[in-house]
Amino acid sequence: MDDHFLFYVPPEYFVSGQLQFPEEEARHIIKVLRKRIGDVVQVTDGMGNRMEVRLTSVDKKTVSGDVVAGTFEPPGPDRILAMGAIRQRDRLEFAIEKAVELGATRIILVHSDHAEKVRVKESRIEKIIISAMKQSRQCHLPRWEERACFDEVISDYSENRKVLMAHPDSEDDATNKTADVQNRENDRIPQLLLVGPEGGFSGEEVRKASEIGAIRISLGPKRLRAETAVCALLTLTMYR
Amino acid sequence: MDDHFLFYVPPEYFVSGQLQFPEEEARHIIKVLRKRIGDVVQVTDGMGNRMEVRLTSVDKKTVSGDVVAGTFEPPGPDRILAMGAIRQRDRLEFAIEKAVELGATRIILVHSDHAEKVRVKESRIEKIIISAMKQSRQCHLPRWEERACFDEVISDYSENRKVLMAHPDSEDDATNKTADVQNRENDRIPQLLLVGPEGGFSGEEVRKASEIGAIRISLGPKRLRAETAVCALLTLTMYR
Repeated sequence: MDDHFLFYVPPEYFVSGQLQFPEEEARHIIKVLRKRIGDVVQVTDGMGNRMEVRLTSVDKKTVSGDVVAGTFEPPGPDRILAMGAIRQRDRLEFAIEKAVELGATRIILVHSDHAEKVRVKESRIEKIIISAMKQSRQCHLPRWEERACFDEVISDYSENRKVLMAHPDSEDDATNKTADVQNRENDRIPQLLLVGPEGGFSGEEVRKASEIGAIRISLGPKRLRAETAVCALLTLTMYR
Repeated sequence: MDDHFLFYVPPEYFVSGQLQFPEEEARHIIKVLRKRIGDVVQVTDGMGNRMEVRLTSVDKKTVSGDVVAGTFEPPGPDRILAMGAIRQRDRLEFAIEKAVELGATRIILVHSDHAEKVRVKESRIEKIIISAMKQSRQCHLPRWEERACFDEVISDYSENRKVLMAHPDSEDDATNKTADVQNRENDRIPQLLLVGPEGGFSGEEVRKASEIGAIRISLGPKRLRAETAVCALLTLTMYR
């Protein structure tokens, strides 16, 4: 599995085709993979570049290399996930990790009416996103941000995007809506995906979303936790 | 939200329409919900019965009640999930929790060739399954077991079931296979769902599954962790 490992080296670490690995990636190369000068590893800069890097120097703490080959993968259409912030840290982190694996290009944590105040540690979220990107061998680093309410998100991000809203009260028309999503799955038009907080969306939020033509999607007859709804909505709307 | 809380009381705690709550459920009723004599709570026995129970005695440690109303929900068709055991405990537990929320009726942990030896604490797994059942307001308690290999699972459980196998190497025909699954989604015939270990299914396992007509399903172009594959496969094959 070692050779499938993808390292993340942000663009600022590159100078004319040469790079020095960030401390943590260097440690992994040295201590875990025990790589040597001349070995080739896979690197992404999180900006769409997937590179082969030949190590030119490996000492106790630092690793440098030369880019010997590279391809650029154009980004797919946006898949923006806006989700109510989850109070339990492990569940929030899990939701973020899964969102990245399942192809969200931007994650917005919404501290909406129904979500309890959640304190988020930025460096920790960043770390989870990077790790999930590497793990799933993607080379575009998803962005993330926090917002105070869904209204704001809808105003800023719904234009030219298909808006899909996970809504627990829409069981009745589930099959139709799902079919609707599935039939259009090859559109590949940008998406804004909305997953409410544990308490569900407020009536106001649902109305606002309806006004701009959001498609409500049921995720089946069972009551799902927020992080499960994230997984299910991203799976159902996946570009395949 | 309190009134939506569903308690689990196994059948052996009932005697002719009366019940004493298990210790942990009693503690929750007393300390968290602060219920009193005469209050009515929702109870399931995990066998399909959903009951309203009026509390007849609430003291420091024990709670008893009378069943005042009840409905039986017939079980849906089997959805058996057989998954490679995951070495990291939190990921394994997450996969099990999500499997229950997303409607697995039986969970089989497979210690196959490619899965590293995983030690599982039975009481812990049981607890997670019960908690997920209650959380998602279901009233059939999913069963679980451990098996040594997928062959065994296929032999024992594939008959009269549609077998669906998550397979990372089947990207090419993803759209067709997915369409196939979606088109038949109203069949409601029993399913056996196979999700490999982190290292993927062995060639032998894939061949064996093909022999009995398993449908291979790609879960999209990205490499997914095992617990993510569990969520995605269950979502795609959900009865809606």
